[in-house]
Amino acid sequence: MDFTKLSHKYQTPLYVYDFDYIREQFSCVKEAFRARKSLVCYAVKANSNLSVLKHLAALGAGCDCVSVGEIKRALFAGVAKYKIIFSGVGKNDSEIEFALKEDILMLNVESEAELKRVEKIAQILKTIARISIRVNPNVDAKTHPYISTGLKKNKFGVDIDTAKKLYIYCKNSPFLEPVGIHCHIGSQILDVAPYSEATAVTAELLRSLKALEIDIKFFDVGGGLGIRYKDEVTIEPYNFAQAVLANLAGMDVTIVCELGRFLVGNSGYLLTKVLYEKQNGAKRFVIVDAAMNDLIRPSLYNAYHEIEVVDKNGGGTLADVVGPVCESGDFLAKEVMLPPLENGDLLVVKSAGAYCFSMSSNYNSRPRVAEVAIEDGKERLIRRREKFEDLIELEREYLGEQ
Amino acid sequence: MDFTKLSHKYQTPLYVYDFDYIREQFSCVKEAFRARKSLVCYAVKANSNLSVLKHLAALGAGCDCVSVGEIKRALFAGVAKYKIIFSGVGKNDSEIEFALKEDILMLNVESEAELKRVEKIAQILKTIARISIRVNPNVDAKTHPYISTGLKKNKFGVDIDTAKKLYIYCKNSPFLEPVGIHCHIGSQILDVAPYSEATAVTAELLRSLKALEIDIKFFDVGGGLGIRYKDEVTIEPYNFAQAVLANLAGMDVTIVCELGRFLVGNSGYLLTKVLYEKQNGAKRFVIVDAAMNDLIRPSLYNAYHEIEVVDKNGGGTLADVVGPVCESGDFLAKEVMLPPLENGDLLVVKSAGAYCFSMSSNYNSRPRVAEVAIEDGKERLIRRREKFEDLIELEREYLGEQ
Repeated sequence: MDFTKLSHKYQTPLYVYDFDYIREQFSCVKEAFRARKSLVCYAVKANSNLSVLKHLAALGAGCDCVSVGEIKRALFAGVAKYKIIFSGVGKNDSEIEFALKEDILMLNVESEAELKRVEKIAQILKTIARISIRVNPNVDAKTHPYISTGLKKNKFGVDIDTAKKLYIYCKNSPFLEPVGIHCHIGSQILDVAPYSEATAVTAELLRSLKALEIDIKFFDVGGGLGIRYKDEVTIEPYNFAQAVLANLAGMDVTIVCELGRFLVGNSGYLLTKVLYEKQNGAKRFVIVDAAMNDLIRPSLYNAYHEIEVVDKNGGGTLADVVGPVCESGDFLAKEVMLPPLENGDLLVVKSAGAYCFSMSSNYNSRPRVAEVAIEDGKERLIRRREKFEDLIELEREYLGEQ
Repeated sequence: MDFTKLSHKYQTPLYVYDFDYIREQFSCVKEAFRARKSLVCYAVKANSNLSVLKHLAALGAGCDCVSVGEIKRALFAGVAKYKIIFSGVGKNDSEIEFALKEDILMLNVESEAELKRVEKIAQILKTIARISIRVNPNVDAKTHPYISTGLKKNKFGVDIDTAKKLYIYCKNSPFLEPVGIHCHIGSQILDVAPYSEATAVTAELLRSLKALEIDIKFFDVGGGLGIRYKDEVTIEPYNFAQAVLANLAGMDVTIVCELGRFLVGNSGYLLTKVLYEKQNGAKRFVIVDAAMNDLIRPSLYNAYHEIEVVDKNGGGTLADVVGPVCESGDFLAKEVMLPPLENGDLLVVKSAGAYCFSMSSNYNSRPRVAEVAIEDGKERLIRRREKFEDLIELEREYLGEQ
């Protein structure tokens, strides 16, 4: 990729996504489950750009959505409604209503209180809500505490016994139809064992539901497949699929999975230019034009993103790469080896396709940056850079005489 | 304040700011420095809503800005240009150019490389840049590492010796006019000693500059005065002023300070409604409609925000208050005592005036919430709630045929 050309044409900071890479990742997962009926969903929260969604929809992906905003994005981008799943612990009434009216595939219900709410709204709408219950298998995914979700101490899902009780409740309700079973244990998972363990627990529940003549059609194994940020050894989709399928012998269910980071994480690059070099005592800082408002993962999760210098070679000394935002928490990398740099030099922050732009903000009144897609060697803008006028658009009319 | 009425009229989640409180806080600081010429600046990054800026401008406040976006906001809201300061480690060329053309009070320069850049741009524009140098006094403000800024290991400012060298450089440049001296050691500071220490160091530099006939008119003591989130004992503005002024006896300078959190932090309330109660094993969760995208401080800084239940009384059990965002890092409070709650109950998250809305994002495709001001018993909208259409506005036109 010609990062220099892109930085001249679109300015920096800039997000660039390799759509060919996304296609390859998607195919790889789809292929891993080829022995079964499967629905590979994309976890929209990872990167919700409409063009990313349209690209995945064209490949046949469904969408795992966690808000009405995400469902609307998916529909707007052309994702088939029967491939859309609505997950999340905090669905409000109007979101549930919207999902039922749009007749999406199913709602992943995360608590008893929510199930009752869905039932009530389905009753009002005179419809039947297709639901799955998110099971919390109490399995340790061994990842960052903020993105581990399958433990009892997490807010997600319900335990096995509660799940069973809720399925029986569904079976007896004229407004609920239990069609799926769901577990998702976390994000950036690098070990296949927790998947085996969680799927085994969930498959056992599935068997007991079949015995109760509760006909579950979709087995949603969640997502969370880790990617290589630095030197992580990741799970091959084939091995992921095998770990799941080994627990489902003889069961006629469609496999659903919900992958975000795995599909788009390493498709993304954040281009940023050097503003200043600075030495404070023993400490070297490279100040760049991207900041924590553009990419909060280093600050929020202490996440590592590899940084590459364009057109300058190695050597150098240790430096912190920091942005213009006025707090010490504003850094993109700490203690990385970099050659001497000067105003205008171009850096590329890697693995910037997932949970990067989608978490960006206007902190310090910084406009959110532009996004560009590369496909078949051609590049195109998929979101334009914000202007000052965009930032004040929802406030200016209230400024008038007081 | 009638939070229930506000929640019905404007829906939740909702930010509400008490403009009378802001006026009192501002007066209190202005009064503390009454023995001197002073310019009380507002640190725009704390809460950059245009109506907040206009309110402070009307009280006589200047603005401390850290981006061209913030300068434009201040100007748009009616802040006099001669009361605007431009700080920050990462000013880019176009920002410097804008600031010079607008003829704002001064640029707080944070590195030698930046000073050279400012000089070059001033030369091109055939103007003289009024500058101050941000001194890093290497003083420990004893606050969260992300918001401590006055240590050598931080990216901010330059050490005393470098500062002196840069002032001499300025004196000899036809395009630079050194008019200010600046230090800012951090945020949420609760102890007056670091202020005394930092001001003493900076005042000593000031004296040596006077001896060199470098005529410094503005002594910018920064900001960072802490507020009460829980049970903190905070610094009185009077004591803050005395600590500063004690070091400036006999020196004819205008005192500048830059306060953000102190002026607006406790003016703000985030109203949020309960969606569900949920018990996972021993763990109780109260799921509300506000999330980490609305208020990231608990997740990012492990910050405490007091939560009050409207119209329900005490007792109860320990619970985590969490939002609908799909990660375990999405919480507003952990292990707080709350009575039994149900769908529709109203909670108020306190101290939500600073670094709350200004850091908010669209993560999980959640629209940013509305903001309301209360002044003299009357309430008014100062930013409308985002709609789905706002979220896709900058993307939809690029969706077309591919």
